[in-house]
Amino acid sequence: MSSKARRVREKAALKREILNAARDLFVQDGYENVSMRRIAEKIDYSPTTVYLHFTDKADLLFHICEETFAKLVAQGDKLVAHKIDPLTKLKMFGRAYIEFGLKHPDHYRLTFMVQHEPGELEERYENSMGHRAFELLRSCVEECIAKGVFRRLDLSLTSQALWAGVHGITSLLIARPDFPWVEKDGTIDLLVDSVCAGFANGERCKSISTFNPRTLNPTTQRP
Amino acid sequence: MSSKARRVREKAALKREILNAARDLFVQDGYENVSMRRIAEKIDYSPTTVYLHFTDKADLLFHICEETFAKLVAQGDKLVAHKIDPLTKLKMFGRAYIEFGLKHPDHYRLTFMVQHEPGELEERYENSMGHRAFELLRSCVEECIAKGVFRRLDLSLTSQALWAGVHGITSLLIARPDFPWVEKDGTIDLLVDSVCAGFANGERCKSISTFNPRTLNPTTQRP
Repeated sequence: MSSKARRVREKAALKREILNAARDLFVQDGYENVSMRRIAEKIDYSPTTVYLHFTDKADLLFHICEETFAKLVAQGDKLVAHKIDPLTKLKMFGRAYIEFGLKHPDHYRLTFMVQHEPGELEERYENSMGHRAFELLRSCVEECIAKGVFRRLDLSLTSQALWAGVHGITSLLIARPDFPWVEKDGTIDLLVDSVCAGFANGERCKSISTFNPRTLNPTTQRP
Repeated sequence: MSSKARRVREKAALKREILNAARDLFVQDGYENVSMRRIAEKIDYSPTTVYLHFTDKADLLFHICEETFAKLVAQGDKLVAHKIDPLTKLKMFGRAYIEFGLKHPDHYRLTFMVQHEPGELEERYENSMGHRAFELLRSCVEECIAKGVFRRLDLSLTSQALWAGVHGITSLLIARPDFPWVEKDGTIDLLVDSVCAGFANGERCKSISTFNPRTLNPTTQRP
């Protein structure tokens, strides 16, 4: 191996080590309570070395989240390439998302369950893996609407509502593994199936929902 | 005021002060990183005083969560007493849950978004306010199934799936307020309506879902 190749490899290994240490500390002590100095101490380097690779704590967090999403995008890209009906594809993506979160709870927690500083990730969102992951979900929803599987709903609104649903079961299973769940897989299936069924055919229930959601007061019911 | 009445009031005020300090510290530094000593220091009392009112840290956490649920139960009890159709009632309860979380993000985060020690809350669950809050949701779902609004689904599974859905939008709006949400209220409405519509009428979509959710591989599609 050339000395240049060795340097490249060593640099990658060090970045990896810093990221792992930061992730562990963020999960353990909370993002706000960890300093760059503490991260450096954990792996026996000087803070200066850490700053050579990451501009600040937010940069570290961004890279950890990007890693999370890159794995999810790789899985999603494979799924989207399948020649299967759009609803099956969308449900598979939803299921893949949930399985992913349960398999990588620390990554998931840090990316979606912990509050970040306002604007910390958002300003880099446009070109991020997180954006690509959401775009994959969105493209599956788009296909379902285009092919008439779903009603003519607003694309972004529908994608965000679906994301909220799959996030709900993922994050509860991570935060409350001891809750007396009847059957985890059955709950996942029922939720994903039901949300999609509602997107496809939500008219029956919609007409009954006549309460004022802003005030939580029931209004006169339609006949 | 008699001296006994004064003592009772002072005791309640002190408990309140300890609970507020504990909640602030748990949210700020993470539950695992806070000691009883730190909580005592924050309000200028000795640890012994804190121990007179709460047996340990888990006891404090339990009481904070109970407080969260007691507020929700009070709201739920009012809703359930309304003479309105069961689906409207259920949707109102879901909406009340979400609004409650958004209005009390620190309580909500600590109760549902942070990992507790295994068994820490669960052993006291049976007689808790948390249990009562879930029973309220469950009773609304039960009425929907009994009156034929929903299909004949498993009651507990359906209640848990619905909870996961409303938790999803609540916790994402708390953890990611800066995400480019199209319209928060619209997303909430669409998710709650869709899950319920799926519980009512999920057959159409169910038959298309023929992938193997364990392996994420599509199986042969039904005609």
